[in-house]
Amino acid sequence: MDRKSIAIDMDEVLADTFKKLLKTVNEVCHLSLTEAEVKGNKMWKLLNAEQAIELRKAINSPGFFRDLEVIDSAVQAVKELSEHYDIYIATAAMEVPNSFHDKYEWLIEHFPFLDARYFIFCGDKKVVHADYLIDDTVSQLDAFTGKGILFKANHNENMETNHMQVDNWQEVLELFTSLQVV
Amino acid sequence: MDRKSIAIDMDEVLADTFKKLLKTVNEVCHLSLTEAEVKGNKMWKLLNAEQAIELRKAINSPGFFRDLEVIDSAVQAVKELSEHYDIYIATAAMEVPNSFHDKYEWLIEHFPFLDARYFIFCGDKKVVHADYLIDDTVSQLDAFTGKGILFKANHNENMETNHMQVDNWQEVLELFTSLQVV
Repeated sequence: MDRKSIAIDMDEVLADTFKKLLKTVNEVCHLSLTEAEVKGNKMWKLLNAEQAIELRKAINSPGFFRDLEVIDSAVQAVKELSEHYDIYIATAAMEVPNSFHDKYEWLIEHFPFLDARYFIFCGDKKVVHADYLIDDTVSQLDAFTGKGILFKANHNENMETNHMQVDNWQEVLELFTSLQVV
Repeated sequence: MDRKSIAIDMDEVLADTFKKLLKTVNEVCHLSLTEAEVKGNKMWKLLNAEQAIELRKAINSPGFFRDLEVIDSAVQAVKELSEHYDIYIATAAMEVPNSFHDKYEWLIEHFPFLDARYFIFCGDKKVVHADYLIDDTVSQLDAFTGKGILFKANHNENMETNHMQVDNWQEVLELFTSLQVV
């Protein structure tokens, strides 16, 4: 029987983009926002137009996505899942065209056991053909045609959704252990 | 009713990669191969190991994929198809990581009417979720889970396959006209 496949989002699921974003917004906009202040909110709402332009410029600069920290336990969990499932990495890189190369290099560095033929740099995730998608963006899970799993993050904490939900990578492993037909 | 979707490959379907490859191999390997000499063959078989390394280096250099010529009638045909179908662009960019940005810029330049959220830079096209895939690589059509359409190119001329086949963009339009339920 063919193995089932799990597509996994990058930003705020594998990579701690939020931490880098907070550091960057404070640097380029000369602010001192704390994680608590932007928690549960879109950071963008706190910026004026000029600050938002500066931040967007920083995000689309080569290098922004290259040194992100890995989310807790992601490497070990993905490695375990890869023993039973085909793992695809599906990231909405088209929104930030300068991120392509950084994202590729980051994946090769931190997840060297994954098959790059299954990396998918896309925009709308309805184009992804997989059995499961783990993502922090509700609209992407809605667009996806397989089973969606919402990975909790600052920005989606209070969103209503019917998708399965997990708080961290330990819960992802528990979910797939419970789903697995042994 | 939801519109059906057509995923379209880039190299040798939208972009004349073969012409650039022939020009490049002659330049970097100091050869004077003609189109007739490599027709129906893999160019690589004519190279020694050193020449193959030089050619690979040239292909993976930034810029190689940026100035490819557009295949005859591709722009007008894709524009017509986009009136009736969702158009995805699905290219195996993971094989050449330095091609990401070139391919993105090339698409934006030549196909400005397409939605970049539907660009898919991937490896194996079994990850692409679409109704149709137009591709010049038989193994990609075999992996794809929708209906495959082989776009004829130098290298696939003598391959046996059960996929629908088209010789050019005029035939693509005729095929979809015949498929369309009016």
